[in-house]
Amino acid sequence: MIMRKPFSAVLLSGAIALLAGCATNPGALQIQEQGSFAVGGSVVTRSGSFDPLKPSDPAGQTLHGDHARVFYQVPVNARPLPLVMWHGFGQFSKNWETTPDGREGFQTLFLRQRYPVYLIDQPRRGGAGKATVAGTLGAVPDEQRWFNQFRLGNWPELFPGVQFSHDPQALNQYFRQMVPDTAPLDSNLNVAAVSALFDKIGPGVLVTHSHSGGMGWSAAMQNPNIRAIVSYEPGSGFVFPQGEAPPPMVSSADTLQPISVPLADFKKLTRMPIVLYYGDNIPTQPSALPGQDNWRTRLAMAKLWVQALNRHGGDATLVHLPEIGITGNTHFPFSDLNNRQTAELMARFLEAKKLD
Amino acid sequence: MIMRKPFSAVLLSGAIALLAGCATNPGALQIQEQGSFAVGGSVVTRSGSFDPLKPSDPAGQTLHGDHARVFYQVPVNARPLPLVMWHGFGQFSKNWETTPDGREGFQTLFLRQRYPVYLIDQPRRGGAGKATVAGTLGAVPDEQRWFNQFRLGNWPELFPGVQFSHDPQALNQYFRQMVPDTAPLDSNLNVAAVSALFDKIGPGVLVTHSHSGGMGWSAAMQNPNIRAIVSYEPGSGFVFPQGEAPPPMVSSADTLQPISVPLADFKKLTRMPIVLYYGDNIPTQPSALPGQDNWRTRLAMAKLWVQALNRHGGDATLVHLPEIGITGNTHFPFSDLNNRQTAELMARFLEAKKLD
Repeated sequence: MIMRKPFSAVLLSGAIALLAGCATNPGALQIQEQGSFAVGGSVVTRSGSFDPLKPSDPAGQTLHGDHARVFYQVPVNARPLPLVMWHGFGQFSKNWETTPDGREGFQTLFLRQRYPVYLIDQPRRGGAGKATVAGTLGAVPDEQRWFNQFRLGNWPELFPGVQFSHDPQALNQYFRQMVPDTAPLDSNLNVAAVSALFDKIGPGVLVTHSHSGGMGWSAAMQNPNIRAIVSYEPGSGFVFPQGEAPPPMVSSADTLQPISVPLADFKKLTRMPIVLYYGDNIPTQPSALPGQDNWRTRLAMAKLWVQALNRHGGDATLVHLPEIGITGNTHFPFSDLNNRQTAELMARFLEAKKLD
Repeated sequence: MIMRKPFSAVLLSGAIALLAGCATNPGALQIQEQGSFAVGGSVVTRSGSFDPLKPSDPAGQTLHGDHARVFYQVPVNARPLPLVMWHGFGQFSKNWETTPDGREGFQTLFLRQRYPVYLIDQPRRGGAGKATVAGTLGAVPDEQRWFNQFRLGNWPELFPGVQFSHDPQALNQYFRQMVPDTAPLDSNLNVAAVSALFDKIGPGVLVTHSHSGGMGWSAAMQNPNIRAIVSYEPGSGFVFPQGEAPPPMVSSADTLQPISVPLADFKKLTRMPIVLYYGDNIPTQPSALPGQDNWRTRLAMAKLWVQALNRHGGDATLVHLPEIGITGNTHFPFSDLNNRQTAELMARFLEAKKLD
């Protein structure tokens, strides 16, 4: 007993000392590894030979470009399948980081759920701005268009009950999270870079948004390492088997064209769980407002697309958030005021499909 | 004793259980908080009034741009002064992340040292690509120029003993970490955005590289929250008190012009510790190779600048790495093969100046 008491006391004090840097910070993220890299892309070489005395002469010089930029974090005790998050049109990896109103985005929320998280800047965007072809950037004011099209409201009014902060600083951050393309947008090139990422990291779950929705289906048809897709408000690129495509859908914004692909390619999308989420304030009847009517046809075609997948043995689900009582979401459910709720919804999907 | 033995056993088992997620991962980063935001910038508004039925018409629409993008991480038990890392010409925040050969960069190395780390994309670059003015991007091949000017070697040969990997994949990553300006580079605008960042976060240490060196002195003359500067191979913007500027220095690359400022402004730089680091393979005699000769004049003027600061009561140090036995460094000592050694050198500076 003379031995036992000091012995246990020593063990306790040692254990408590070790706890100090960890258990006293229950809110701390435990990151096993983090980093960044470029993936995909190509190299062009100007004819001629490089003259070191004329460094400004492009003759014989190379240009590496059209790659994707990736920033990743792997938490301690990580789950097996990483989440690869791909932004939408005019956006970049920032979308998944801090929300416009300053809260944690999906990047950090899912790290806390022990998922490895990879954020993409697609080729010719943000940190992947180095392109192999020239670009012209107009800097044309267009933010009221996006305010309406991303369904924050009807400029300058926010929708009643919309899941977006009324703090002007939030709108300021929101507008500043867009970035221009540094060269013409090339979907095939984007898909190739994302497929190259999955070649590098192996099996994972692709999380897409808006414009990357359609490119995401293409990437999944190319790369079997894409084991599931979570798509927030996909806005284009709905692929149907040849002969099964619905007629184009006309809105006051545009005419939404379905895409026909060989049945064999389409069937590849029936081998993985797919979930689509759409937010609130999408009109059910034709509207003269293009920013809103745009989503009426997209939601309608998404429903037909999910039916087609399941008709062919797929495992696709469309969740229209208001129909399950989650109201006020914009085009960005992952960064809206209720993004902890939408994250929980996505986490439950991953769990239900044994992707966790 | 009947009580004590089980009691201590319970405490022990509980403590050991709590340790599982932490002490079993000694290499894990403990991040208390991380996120991103835009800072600085301006807003332009097109004349006219916005018509929601014509969303593509810029009339009456706004454009938020010319801000900096910032990604930050605050470790558990953080030191008081954050490190704000500012990239050089043609580069972005990526420079401080994973090195071209895949090792940890200064971002993660200094998080491990418990410093909060803020990474900047300056306005019109990378994730801060949204500009208020138009831009034209040429996509002109120029990588052999940078290979030579950043002193990896004389293309295609690496310098003997250079601190850069011979793995072709490292060079591929290195070339892909450059990004174009999305609009004309504007130093005043960049300085204003970085000063706005220090207004937001309070006192900190500014870490600059190459082209941000000169802009960094300007920011420090504007914002007293910049408490110290660590500058890797500053390449321009050497400010001298009016009447004390040395003559311009001619190299086969260009003519390096000193900048005259009022003595009162210059004196602001004497109130903080400043250290400059330069790497290896800088010629001591004029060279016909612009990529190398460029650094001969810059190192020479940096020495005069440090003398001027100290003559006026400053606390400036210039460390030419080969002179202290650290050889082979390129223009990027913070991502070179020996970056753990250069990080340790910087950490010792911060410690010596009571900035830790």
